[in-house]
Amino acid sequence: MDLERYLAARGRLVERALAARFPPARARLRQAVRYSLLAGGKRIRPILALAAGEVCGAPARRVLPFACALEMIHTYSLVHDDLPAMDDDDLRRGQPTSHKVWGEGLAILVGDALLTEAFRVMAGARGVPPARALGAVAEVAAAAGEAGMVGGQALDLAAEGSRASLRRVQDIHRRKTGALLRSAVRVGALVAGADARTLRRLTAYGEHLGLAFQIADDILDASGDPEADGRTDHELGKATYPGVLGLAGARAAAARERDAALAALRGLGRAAEALRALAAYVVARAS
Amino acid sequence: MDLERYLAARGRLVERALAARFPPARARLRQAVRYSLLAGGKRIRPILALAAGEVCGAPARRVLPFACALEMIHTYSLVHDDLPAMDDDDLRRGQPTSHKVWGEGLAILVGDALLTEAFRVMAGARGVPPARALGAVAEVAAAAGEAGMVGGQALDLAAEGSRASLRRVQDIHRRKTGALLRSAVRVGALVAGADARTLRRLTAYGEHLGLAFQIADDILDASGDPEADGRTDHELGKATYPGVLGLAGARAAAARERDAALAALRGLGRAAEALRALAAYVVARAS
Repeated sequence: MDLERYLAARGRLVERALAARFPPARARLRQAVRYSLLAGGKRIRPILALAAGEVCGAPARRVLPFACALEMIHTYSLVHDDLPAMDDDDLRRGQPTSHKVWGEGLAILVGDALLTEAFRVMAGARGVPPARALGAVAEVAAAAGEAGMVGGQALDLAAEGSRASLRRVQDIHRRKTGALLRSAVRVGALVAGADARTLRRLTAYGEHLGLAFQIADDILDASGDPEADGRTDHELGKATYPGVLGLAGARAAAARERDAALAALRGLGRAAEALRALAAYVVARAS
Repeated sequence: MDLERYLAARGRLVERALAARFPPARARLRQAVRYSLLAGGKRIRPILALAAGEVCGAPARRVLPFACALEMIHTYSLVHDDLPAMDDDDLRRGQPTSHKVWGEGLAILVGDALLTEAFRVMAGARGVPPARALGAVAEVAAAAGEAGMVGGQALDLAAEGSRASLRRVQDIHRRKTGALLRSAVRVGALVAGADARTLRRLTAYGEHLGLAFQIADDILDASGDPEADGRTDHELGKATYPGVLGLAGARAAAARERDAALAALRGLGRAAEALRALAAYVVARAS
């Protein structure tokens, strides 16, 4: 399959839906939300949700509100992570970070607004049975909350500057990045009403993909590639895979996770081609 | 009715449910969440939700998860509002604020976690038809989001130090405080499956109560009463009712809103006694 084309088409879909959800307005909060939300990015999480939905027969438009919610939550986490009290980043994807442009107070509110509106978008989705939509809300909240992303970020904050073990690095990444990626895949399946077996397979795929993604991101980061997800973990002395395993070891680990992700899709046939290509793509970025 | 007793009993119910949801754990994030969430407070929002549910025949245990979610969102908003980049408060209910105890980074994450977990609690509520639970999620997200609380806080941030008109003060308060109070009443009704007419009445009640509450809070604040909701708007030169209407004018406005709230409950009979007593209580605090 032509992944470039697929990514571009799905990315446009997400882009348009996000822009329509937050049209230009005079309020500074809205402007600041648009600044961060519509600043580009690979839109990997929403595309994963759409692709997982397709595997289970759901048209993209049905999964789209949930896909947008995932990107809004991802964006909120970046805005808050960049704050001076957290990673203190001045640049994100080559542009000044939210707090640099709008001030710290408004940047905090941008994150709060995006997180809240993400749940509003999901709760307001049309054409999805309420029980499924509610399941997706529960899924995303669990992935983004204390046991997932926020909890991972708190561990990361505590681990800063200290030498972390591989196990610790894995735990932090699994929660900080892996949980939301995994839930992106699961949300697509849940909204589509996947059967238990397919959901299990897609969950395993999402889990391995999440790890592969983070290892690849760490590798890009260590090699100073600006394609890395805006992170400067290496400079911050944070726990990273190359830091623990070395560059070659990290590359081998990423390939292993990719292969495990692909293995989980066995039996899902041609419908899972996009997910397969995405797994390969995520790791290829860093090799 | 014996409001004191009612408040104490309902308050205990909420207190126990919140503590059970966040049991003690080693993680600093959990400790910091408990520090702010279980630090006392009047629990007005959850009690309003429970009381509105009762009017429509819903037992307290059914509304309780939603009531807890409202208190979690209220607490997150206090933790973020207290941050140095916002109101920069050192004390909240006589105790050091979250960022003073746990540091700014963790305080931001405490708010993020509480906001996210609030939606998780609602999505995981048992015994409520999914369509109703989803309606409650949409209601709370709308009240807490860009058009409501977060948007109001952004306006407040922008208005700081400037002379605001009454209209502007009302708009800020309606969004910053009123929206969540109104939604607390509506959520109780929605979860209980209230008919359209009752929902309209309770919505009007919630709207007037929200305004009465904020005017009363401004009055307490202006008179330096530590019972005020931890705010120091007066010192911050923020827009307040006494600042615009004078103390006597603000008191009259609070009484008018209380009367309008009571009028909205006409026809709801004895089941609405708790809501009536709450309206009187909210204003009596400040007179």
